[in-house]
Amino acid sequence: MALDPKSVGAKGKPARRSWTSKDALLYAVGVGAGTKELQFTTENTKDTPQRVLPTMAVILGGGGVPFDKIGTFNPALMVHGTEGIELYDEIPPDGEIESVGEITGIWDKGKAAVAEIESTATLVATGRPLFKVKMSMFCRGAGDFGGERGPSPTFELPTRKPDHEVVYTTREDQALTYRLSGDRNPLHSDPAFAKIGGFDRPILHGLCTYGFTGRALLHTLCGSDPSRFKAMDGRFSKPVMPGDALTIQMWVDGKQALFVTRNQNGDIVLDQGEFKFA
Amino acid sequence: MALDPKSVGAKGKPARRSWTSKDALLYAVGVGAGTKELQFTTENTKDTPQRVLPTMAVILGGGGVPFDKIGTFNPALMVHGTEGIELYDEIPPDGEIESVGEITGIWDKGKAAVAEIESTATLVATGRPLFKVKMSMFCRGAGDFGGERGPSPTFELPTRKPDHEVVYTTREDQALTYRLSGDRNPLHSDPAFAKIGGFDRPILHGLCTYGFTGRALLHTLCGSDPSRFKAMDGRFSKPVMPGDALTIQMWVDGKQALFVTRNQNGDIVLDQGEFKFA
Repeated sequence: MALDPKSVGAKGKPARRSWTSKDALLYAVGVGAGTKELQFTTENTKDTPQRVLPTMAVILGGGGVPFDKIGTFNPALMVHGTEGIELYDEIPPDGEIESVGEITGIWDKGKAAVAEIESTATLVATGRPLFKVKMSMFCRGAGDFGGERGPSPTFELPTRKPDHEVVYTTREDQALTYRLSGDRNPLHSDPAFAKIGGFDRPILHGLCTYGFTGRALLHTLCGSDPSRFKAMDGRFSKPVMPGDALTIQMWVDGKQALFVTRNQNGDIVLDQGEFKFA
Repeated sequence: MALDPKSVGAKGKPARRSWTSKDALLYAVGVGAGTKELQFTTENTKDTPQRVLPTMAVILGGGGVPFDKIGTFNPALMVHGTEGIELYDEIPPDGEIESVGEITGIWDKGKAAVAEIESTATLVATGRPLFKVKMSMFCRGAGDFGGERGPSPTFELPTRKPDHEVVYTTREDQALTYRLSGDRNPLHSDPAFAKIGGFDRPILHGLCTYGFTGRALLHTLCGSDPSRFKAMDGRFSKPVMPGDALTIQMWVDGKQALFVTRNQNGDIVLDQGEFKFA
């Protein structure tokens, strides 16, 4: 089994996806928004129009990728590598997007291979680009096809203390609410399935951690205003267990920031974080 | 304004309502079911078919009631009095019901009046009765119409210690998840609206407390088997605040039980509880 480097540049068929106000509320409670974030968790609070957490792009977007051209790999050996979003406009509480996806990179890491994809979503109602979602998949056992190794990350953790630090505690049943936004992989809920995957118990969705982290960046660096949230990239470096306390550390440089998210033991769970805001 | 005693016996037009597996999962997490109740909170756990919490009847049912015939009352002065369900069969994870409702009682309590309604739901797929939902509304300022006072409750709290006691703690953001099952009344989420209603902060949905209580009865007296859950009646006696710890106390007598639910101060919040099981 190996990924196919000739698939780079392949585009998929445009895919449509619509969502409702309720979907946005459910996503918000799934990533831990609560009674202090009523603009994201309610639609009828006085003087508080509903708004959408920017990281919801990761569950709405990503469509239209030609996964059938990517080559062969064992899905059980695949892990989510990196995830990134770029926001061109604020996501409305309900709407419909059309996504066009592309395979943007296939890299040979030796035994493993990495596939990079991108998907750009256009808001159907306006015809204007809304956001882009980028992700990489790390596919064990799908390398050694004589391809290029690809670029290495250049991220360096600043040596100074973080400029900001936010602590959010996930709930022991966090994944049970988050999964209702779409990812029903039993790795996140079924103890027997998690054991087969080599975990003591079900692990939290990486994209749920991504959502918690996005909330911290939004509230700390964007004054809670989704229209100021421009781009967020990161790499999943360690599983998060439901119930873990997450500490999001940020180092600001103008309108950009580096960030990492750590668990209660100090281990980095979301690494190489880069954030842009207005 | 007064309720109209001539409306007793009036029936409404049959109302249809369908639900999905996701609706049932969302209801379950809304009433506090978690990782120890995966048969109610997941649909793909190994050897664990999805089942539905019997108290979900209160959000699926209740349709087809001719509210337009009930007389006049100020909705802002109306409070939920009692709620009861009778289950004739186990609720499937998805399905469609047809409900027929009836006004079963109008009582003159002096300044206030009480309206009692019932609604029986039939599973469309089988044509068989699935459950009945009963409720009463206490309408302040809608009495004094010269009607009958109606029966008084005969419930007496046993003097012996409860046979079973279960403690469930609601979350500070409990209402934000529960409301996604349908009841978006801002009394349960908007601090400004709650203040107008005379509360320091938003109160929990009475039917959310009812759902927590039903879980305790189901797990304690029915071995967690919804098919053994037959009927549950209770009266809302005091608001519950999100974050309150609920203690459900049960006194068993054969296949029946009396129960009350108390908050952490010992105050009864769900009173006159009667439960039947098989």
